[in-house]
Amino acid sequence: MSSTWGRNIRISVFGESHGTGIGVVLDGFPAGLALDMDQLAAEMARRRPGTGRHATARSEADQVEILSGVHNGITTGTPLCGIIRNMDTKSVDYADLQILPRPGHADYTGQVRYGGFNDPRGGGHFSGRLTAPLVFAGEICRQYLETKGITIGSHIQTIRDVIDCPFDPCRVGVSELELLRTMAVPVNDRSCAQEMLDAVEDARLAMNSVGGIVETAVIGLQPGIGSPMFRNVEARLSSMLFSIPAVKGVEFGDGFALSAMTGSEANDAFYMDNGHVRTRTNHNGGLNGGITNGMPVVFRVVVKPTASIFMEQETVNLKTATDAKLSVKGRHDPCIVIRAVPVLDAATAIAILDLLLDPNPVVAANPAAGPG
Amino acid sequence: MSSTWGRNIRISVFGESHGTGIGVVLDGFPAGLALDMDQLAAEMARRRPGTGRHATARSEADQVEILSGVHNGITTGTPLCGIIRNMDTKSVDYADLQILPRPGHADYTGQVRYGGFNDPRGGGHFSGRLTAPLVFAGEICRQYLETKGITIGSHIQTIRDVIDCPFDPCRVGVSELELLRTMAVPVNDRSCAQEMLDAVEDARLAMNSVGGIVETAVIGLQPGIGSPMFRNVEARLSSMLFSIPAVKGVEFGDGFALSAMTGSEANDAFYMDNGHVRTRTNHNGGLNGGITNGMPVVFRVVVKPTASIFMEQETVNLKTATDAKLSVKGRHDPCIVIRAVPVLDAATAIAILDLLLDPNPVVAANPAAGPG
Amino acid sequence: MSSTWGRNIRISVFGESHGTGIGVVLDGFPAGLALDMDQLAAEMARRRPGTGRHATARSEADQVEILSGVHNGITTGTPLCGIIRNMDTKSVDYADLQILPRPGHADYTGQVRYGGFNDPRGGGHFSGRLTAPLVFAGEICRQYLETKGITIGSHIQTIRDVIDCPFDPCRVGVSELELLRTMAVPVNDRSCAQEMLDAVEDARLAMNSVGGIVETAVIGLQPGIGSPMFRNVEARLSSMLFSIPAVKGVEFGDGFALSAMTGSEANDAFYMDNGHVRTRTNHNGGLNGGITNGMPVVFRVVVKPTASIFMEQETVNLKTATDAKLSVKGRHDPCIVIRAVPVLDAATAIAILDLLLDPNPVVAANPAAGPG
Amino acid sequence: MSSTWGRNIRISVFGESHGTGIGVVLDGFPAGLALDMDQLAAEMARRRPGTGRHATARSEADQVEILSGVHNGITTGTPLCGIIRNMDTKSVDYADLQILPRPGHADYTGQVRYGGFNDPRGGGHFSGRLTAPLVFAGEICRQYLETKGITIGSHIQTIRDVIDCPFDPCRVGVSELELLRTMAVPVNDRSCAQEMLDAVEDARLAMNSVGGIVETAVIGLQPGIGSPMFRNVEARLSSMLFSIPAVKGVEFGDGFALSAMTGSEANDAFYMDNGHVRTRTNHNGGLNGGITNGMPVVFRVVVKPTASIFMEQETVNLKTATDAKLSVKGRHDPCIVIRAVPVLDAATAIAILDLLLDPNPVVAANPAAGPG
Repeated sequence: MSSTWGRNIRISVFGESHGTGIGVVLDGFPAGLALDMDQLAAEMARRRPGTGRHATARSEADQVEILSGVHNGITTGTPLCGIIRNMDTKSVDYADLQILPRPGHADYTGQVRYGGFNDPRGGGHFSGRLTAPLVFAGEICRQYLETKGITIGSHIQTIRDVIDCPFDPCRVGVSELELLRTMAVPVNDRSCAQEMLDAVEDARLAMNSVGGIVETAVIGLQPGIGSPMFRNVEARLSSMLFSIPAVKGVEFGDGFALSAMTGSEANDAFYMDNGHVRTRTNHNGGLNGGITNGMPVVFRVVVKPTASIFMEQETVNLKTATDAKLSVKGRHDPCIVIRAVPVLDAATAIAILDLLLDPNPVVAANPAAGPG
Repeated sequence: MSSTWGRNIRISVFGESHGTGIGVVLDGFPAGLALDMDQLAAEMARRRPGTGRHATARSEADQVEILSGVHNGITTGTPLCGIIRNMDTKSVDYADLQILPRPGHADYTGQVRYGGFNDPRGGGHFSGRLTAPLVFAGEICRQYLETKGITIGSHIQTIRDVIDCPFDPCRVGVSELELLRTMAVPVNDRSCAQEMLDAVEDARLAMNSVGGIVETAVIGLQPGIGSPMFRNVEARLSSMLFSIPAVKGVEFGDGFALSAMTGSEANDAFYMDNGHVRTRTNHNGGLNGGITNGMPVVFRVVVKPTASIFMEQETVNLKTATDAKLSVKGRHDPCIVIRAVPVLDAATAIAILDLLLDPNPVVAANPAAGPG
Repeated sequence: MSSTWGRNIRISVFGESHGTGIGVVLDGFPAGLALDMDQLAAEMARRRPGTGRHATARSEADQVEILSGVHNGITTGTPLCGIIRNMDTKSVDYADLQILPRPGHADYTGQVRYGGFNDPRGGGHFSGRLTAPLVFAGEICRQYLETKGITIGSHIQTIRDVIDCPFDPCRVGVSELELLRTMAVPVNDRSCAQEMLDAVEDARLAMNSVGGIVETAVIGLQPGIGSPMFRNVEARLSSMLFSIPAVKGVEFGDGFALSAMTGSEANDAFYMDNGHVRTRTNHNGGLNGGITNGMPVVFRVVVKPTASIFMEQETVNLKTATDAKLSVKGRHDPCIVIRAVPVLDAATAIAILDLLLDPNPVVAANPAAGPG
Repeated sequence: MSSTWGRNIRISVFGESHGTGIGVVLDGFPAGLALDMDQLAAEMARRRPGTGRHATARSEADQVEILSGVHNGITTGTPLCGIIRNMDTKSVDYADLQILPRPGHADYTGQVRYGGFNDPRGGGHFSGRLTAPLVFAGEICRQYLETKGITIGSHIQTIRDVIDCPFDPCRVGVSELELLRTMAVPVNDRSCAQEMLDAVEDARLAMNSVGGIVETAVIGLQPGIGSPMFRNVEARLSSMLFSIPAVKGVEFGDGFALSAMTGSEANDAFYMDNGHVRTRTNHNGGLNGGITNGMPVVFRVVVKPTASIFMEQETVNLKTATDAKLSVKGRHDPCIVIRAVPVLDAATAIAILDLLLDPNPVVAANPAAGPG
C-alpha cells in the first residue's frame, strides 16, 4: 500500500522499469471530461527519454493504452487505467546491480526492503521511468483543472550554477505558464537555456551529472482550498512532490529565505482589489495556514544530480560483504531536471485536484463573514 | 477529515486556542509501554509559552489529563486520549480579527474555508497552541521508539543571521541528541545561544519578529524502512512537518544545496563497516529512494517569522471590503523557533513510528540478497 | 488505527468502560449547524442504562462535555470533541474477568490481541458503553441530515419470538419514523411492546438474556448516492453497523429471503411518478448496485442476546490453563435490543453523512441522461 | 476513490464489461511468494462464464496478463497488476439500457451517479464481470494465506428451496474445504447438487432466475486477529463482501437465528484442549468482539436472483420520462450463485490477508496474560 495516493481521487501506480509494462489506475476522476489526446501525447513526449543529447539513449514510444474509464473519448467517472509497455529494455546492463548497488540510488535499500525479491533491473519499481504513468494521470487531472480556470506551469530555476529569473509571485500569468509548457528548456529568461544545456553537456563529457531547482506556479485557485492541520495544501503537495525520485527539498513562497527575514518583511499585506482580497507581496506562496488565499501558489523543488554516473565509484559487494568498485553501464541522463518539469506539473495537478474535490459543506453562509 | 493523520497509528487533533480544551486521540499505539510521565511533562514544558522573555506572555500549565488508553501507567493498545484545558484565555484581545485579518496568518483563509463559522479567537484551530497535543502524542511515540534504540534530536540551525554548527550527518550520536533535549536553547555550538536570544530580543524591541531553521536527526533506524513511491520516508515526514504552523520548507540531506553539486559529489559511496553497509558521506540524509539506508536521517525545516507582530500593518476590513490598518494586540512570541524544536521532535516521532509499524512481509529470505 | 472510521467525516472513538472517560472526535463535520442540545440529550437518554427494569442497574448521567468544534452553539467546521466521564464504576465486580473470560464476550480475544495489557474492567474498550460517544456523534450527524430532508428511524422487528410489523418499504414516512424516536419501546404495532418487555423480564428472572432484530429506514435520499465497487451504500453501512457490539448480521431489502425468490419476484419494477423515477416494490431496499435509487433505504440488523448472563457458565482459567466455572457479577442488561435502537440510528446517520459528502464531480450534464 | 479497498494491501479494480479490458492492481502484497499459476487459472475457470447450461453463453478466456510485481515467477513486493482483455463483446445487445434501465440492476442508479457518462454497455463498471479481477487478486492472497496454514472454502447452502448441509462450525477441516474447491457444484451433501442444477434449469426455461446462500469457512486463524471498534473482522469482511454485486445480506456464526436464542444458548463455552483455548459450540462464528478466538470463522452471504431476466418487465423510458416495457436481451446466467463461490473465496482471502498484516506491536508480553 505504498504506490497508492489520494483521497478524492486515488492513483495507483504500478510497474518496473524492465518488466512487461507500467501504468496507473486513476479512481474517482470526474465524469464527463472530453480528453485532449494530442495534449496528452505532448506531455508524455516532454518527459520521454531520448529526445536530446542531454537525455538517456533509451528510446521508448511511451504510447499509453487506455483500458478503461473512457467511453467515446469522454471520461466515465469509473476507474481510468492507462498502461505503457516496456519495449527497449536491455536488462543485461543491470545484471550486477543486485550485487554492486549504485551509490545514491535505491538498489541497496530496495533490496533490504523487499528481502531481495524486488526486480533489480533498471531500478525496478524505483526507476524514474515510473514517472511516465504519473505524467499520464497528471495531465488528465490538469485538463480537468483547466476547465475550472486553474493553470499550472513550471520553469527551471537553476541547473547547477546557471540561474533563471524567478516567477513574479504576484503577477505570474496564464500565457506565461502555457508558453513554458511548449519550450524544450522551459525558462523565463530564454538566454539561459543554452547555458543550462552546456552545463549538462559538460557533466556528460565528464561522465558526471548535475541537478537543479524547478519553480512551479498554480494560478486561478479560489481562496479557501485546503484544511488544517494535516490536509493543508503544503502538506498534501509535499507528500506528492517528495514521491518523485530525486526530489530532496520542497519550499513554498520564499521558503528557506524566510529564515533570515523579519515578520514585517515576511507578512504579505492584504488590500482590496476590485472587490477581491489580494496581497501586495507573496512571500507566503499564496498560502496562509496552508490554505489558499487566492494569490498564485508558488513553490520550488530541488532535483538532485542523477545518481547513475559513468565514472568509477566506491560501493560494496553485497554477496561477499566486501568493499568494491563500480562502473555503471546502461543509459542514463546526465541531468534529469529538464525531464522533471512535466513530472512536477503532473504531480502538482494530481495533488491540487485531490484537494479541490474536498467536500466543504457549510450549512448556511454566515452573514458575519465578509468577502471571500 | 483534516486533523487526522497516519495509517498504523492515527492521531486526531482537536481544539481551538480559546475554546474549552484541546487534545489528541492516538489510535493504534502499541500496548505495554510504561509511560515516563516526568519526561512527558518535560517535553510539554519545552513547548509551553511564557517561560522566557522571548516567549509569549500567555501562561498555560498545559497539564494533560489522560482519559483513556493507559491502565496502571501502561498503554493498553486501545485509543489513548489526552486533553488540555485552556485556562488563561483573553479572547477580547482577538475580537477584531474576524474583521481585520492579520497578514501572514490564517485569519482570512480560515474564514473563507469555514464560511465564517470557525472560532476566530486566537487563531482558533489554526493556532500554534494546537502543537501542544502534538508534543503530547509525539513524546509518547518517542518513548516507544527509544525502546527500539531510535533517538531523535534537533538543534536550531539558524535564527535570523545567527548560525549554529550543523550536525555531522555521519557521526551524530545518541548523547549529543539527548543533551539537546535538555537545553533552553538547543544548539551544537553553545556560544551562539546568547546571540540567538539577542536576535529575538532585538525583534521584540522593534515590535517585529524573526524566524529560523531547525535541523533534526534520527538515529538507530534499520535500513529498509519506507516504501516506494508515495510511502517513502521523505513524503510521509514532510506531510507531517508541513502540518506544523509556520513551516514553509523541508529538505533532506544536503537538500537545496544538492542543486549545485555534481553526481560524484552528491552520491554517498558505500563501504563495509564491521559487517554493516555504511556510506562515507551522507549527502542524501540517510535515505536512498526514500528508504532508510541505516545512516542517520537528517533534515531541516524553515520556521517563518511569527506572523503576529505589534507594529502597524496594512490589511483589509472584511465587513466593509475596504483597506484598513491593523495593530495586533494579545500575546505573541517574537520568535517561535525555540519552542518549535520539541514540536519538530514530536512530529518526527509520530511519523517515524507510523512508518516503523508498516508490515513488511517477506515469504522467505532470498538467498540472493546480501547483508541488510 | 482501529477505532477511527470514515473518509469525508472521520470519527475517532476512545475510552474504556471503567477508565476516566470516553468520547469521540468528529473531524470534517460541516460548519454552520446550530446544534439542538435538547434533542442531543434526548438521544443520549434513549441509550443510557438504568432507565428501566429491563436495563442494567448502572447509573450514568452520560453528560457530554463539548471541548471543541462548537462556538456560540454552532459547529465551527473544525474537529468537534465530546467527552463523557465515567462516574458509577464498580471495577471490583470485574476483577476476575482477566483470568476467567466470559463466554460470548471479548474478554479472551481482547487479552490475546493486546498481550494482556488492555483494560479488562467492564470489557474496557470493547464495552457496549463505547456506543455512547457513537450516539453523540451520530445524533449531530442526524441533525445535519435533517437539514437536507433526510430522516432516519428504527423499530424493533423482534425480541426473541415477539414480532413487530415490518416497515412498508415503499411508503414508510417521516412522521412514522420521528414517532419511533419518542417511544420507550419503538415498534410499529404498539400492541407488541409489552410482550417484548415481558420476554425481557422472563429472561432476567431466568438469569438469562435475549436478543432480537432491529429494522431501520432512511428516507429522503436522492438517487445516485454511493459508488461502485467498494464505496457502495451497503458496504459502507455494514462496515459501520458490524462495529456495534453484538451485531452479527446485516441484510438490505428482503435480505436473506431473496435466496428463495425468483428474479421476477425480486426485481423492483420502475415507474414514473409525477416526473420522478420510483419502484413499485422495494425488495432491494432502495439500492441498485449499492447506489440509492430514491426509494427508502431499508435494512435489518440482528443483535445477539447479551453475553453477560448471571447463570453459571463453563469457561477456562487463563492463569492455570484449566477448565473453570464462571458466575458473572456486575450490572448487565438481560436485553440490549431496545438500547441498541438509538445506537443503530446514530451509526446509520454517521455512515450516510459520510457518503452524502462524497464529491461527485461531473464536468457537464450529459444530455443523453434522462430524469434523475 | 470507490474501486479501491484495503489498508495493508490495497486493491484497485478497474474496467468495464465491454471496454478494452479489466484488471486489478494489488499494492502491498508480500514479496517472495512463488505463484502457482495453474491454481490461479483453475480459480479463474471456476468463475468464468460459459462452462455449463446454467451459465451465461458469453465466452471469455479470461486469460490474465501480469504486467508487474512478479519477477521470475515470484512476487516482488511492489505493485502487482493483472489485466484481462475483453474479447467476446456484443455491445449492440445493450444499446437500449441507457434509456430503458433493467429493474434490479444498476443501469438507472449508475446513470444518475455519473451524470449519464458511465459506460452503459453490459453494466459497464457495475458488471459482474468485474469480479474476475477480484478472483485473480484473491487467489494470489489465498496462496499466501496457505503458506500461513490458513484455509478458505465455501459451499452452496441453498439455491432457491434446495438446501445443503451446513458446515460443522467447530470441526470443519482442511481437506473438506479443499475438496469443495474442485467441485463443479460445491456442496457438502453431494446428493443435492443435481437438485440445485435442476432449480437453475427450471428458472432458465421460465425465462426467470434464482438466488441462494453461500456459506464460507476460514480455518487456521490464530486468536487475536482484528481490532475494536471499526477494524474488527466482521466489519472489514462485510465491507468487502457487500462489494460483490448481488450480495444483499451477511451474517456471522448463527447470524439472524441468534435473535431467537437466549444468552445461555448463544454463548460458546470455553474449554482447554491440549493447552489451547477452544469453544464447545461456535454460534459466534469464531469471533468474539469481532476478533478471532481461534475457532473456524464461519459466515453466510445471500446472493439475490440474477436481475437480468428474459421475461418482459416494467420499466421507465428515461428519455421520454414515461412508463415502458423491457425485454432484456444479451447473455445472462439464470443463477450466479455457483459462479459466486470462487468470488466469495477470493474476496474473503483479500479481507483476511489485509487484517492478518495489521501490525500488532506489544512492547513486552504481560506475564499477567494467560495462554493465547
